[in-house]
Amino acid sequence: MSSWYQTTLQLAPKKRGFHLITGELLQQVPEIRSIQTGLLHLFLQHTSASLTVNENADPAVRRDFEVFFNRLIPENQPGYEHTYEGSDDLPAHFKSSLLSPSLTLPVTGGNLNLGTWQGIYLCEHRNHGGSRRLVVTLQGERF
Amino acid sequence: MSSWYQTTLQLAPKKRGFHLITGELLQQVPEIRSIQTGLLHLFLQHTSASLTVNENADPAVRRDFEVFFNRLIPENQPGYEHTYEGSDDLPAHFKSSLLSPSLTLPVTGGNLNLGTWQGIYLCEHRNHGGSRRLVVTLQGERF
Amino acid sequence: MSSWYQTTLQLAPKKRGFHLITGELLQQVPEIRSIQTGLLHLFLQHTSASLTVNENADPAVRRDFEVFFNRLIPENQPGYEHTYEGSDDLPAHFKSSLLSPSLTLPVTGGNLNLGTWQGIYLCEHRNHGGSRRLVVTLQGERF
Repeated sequence: MSSWYQTTLQLAPKKRGFHLITGELLQQVPEIRSIQTGLLHLFLQHTSASLTVNENADPAVRRDFEVFFNRLIPENQPGYEHTYEGSDDLPAHFKSSLLSPSLTLPVTGGNLNLGTWQGIYLCEHRNHGGSRRLVVTLQGERF
Repeated sequence: MSSWYQTTLQLAPKKRGFHLITGELLQQVPEIRSIQTGLLHLFLQHTSASLTVNENADPAVRRDFEVFFNRLIPENQPGYEHTYEGSDDLPAHFKSSLLSPSLTLPVTGGNLNLGTWQGIYLCEHRNHGGSRRLVVTLQGERF
Repeated sequence: MSSWYQTTLQLAPKKRGFHLITGELLQQVPEIRSIQTGLLHLFLQHTSASLTVNENADPAVRRDFEVFFNRLIPENQPGYEHTYEGSDDLPAHFKSSLLSPSLTLPVTGGNLNLGTWQGIYLCEHRNHGGSRRLVVTLQGERF
């Protein structure tokens, strides 16, 4: 029998770049500990930030992500129309859709069932994105 | 206790480009109104179209998406094998996997719990893609 | 009423490239046959491989994917820090996040409800990735 829990978190503001938020998230969603088998769904209510899962150990990987995505999607390119919200805005929309604003993760035995080297990244694509709203939906079988 | 609802929709044909389908979807899935806490899963049964969430206000953003993805994944590049279904076909496969054919969205209080500026895009990557089949799976706690 | 099933599979090692694993997966998760309406969630516990859905018929599409992603994300580019695990490592992290390590797929009438031309790809981005761990979470209404 499935149990449901849903809440909206306000994440601490982050500077532009890729940030490990596994700890911040687990602290704010202690309800995960009550689920034996389930799924955690995360959804950012924004179109210029995104979520992904990647390497949790070497912080250089997160810096390299910022370099890579800025090269793949450079600012100030000609031929675009939606350019009045700053040079970082339209690239942020593209990055958000390429990486996706949502994640679904397995929950097992009261914990997120990630691989040893996996962490959750908040990808902040704006220069001054501010605090981001995250809708958290947890479902599964309780202990 | 979870309730499940599943159906397959036939979306109205769209021309190549990025199209806001939030309204078309909500109209065809009124069952969302009966779910207090849940998730809506959308799955396109195609390999040359995709779904994403992005800006719902300025239609220029959708036109800029088409420009961006055509630049990122140009047609008629040398070195590919699967080229006999038209110059738009193989790029459409790449775009479909980069953006993904599926979405999972939170449902809260009988509504999709999107951010103020978020809408659902049907990304039509073929020149003549025709009507697209979308498998809709809705689950959650009823009121 | 929802039923849950969760297991971790060890996929057979694959060489670098894109591999159709629909058959391998269905064989290892016969529990899908007992679900009338539900969802299958797949999650790779790795940061240098990914999952996607794309064309299941012409194997040239998978070879073209490998060519495309190597062009989009070339190895041995200057300006990166995390370069000590081999020239294929950092590009593999980028590819993993662009394509995503997870998938959610509809289950209908005891089968995966994919389109006629859709198959599940294991995207192996390392030269020698070895066996990959896949967390499988199946939920839904039983027959």
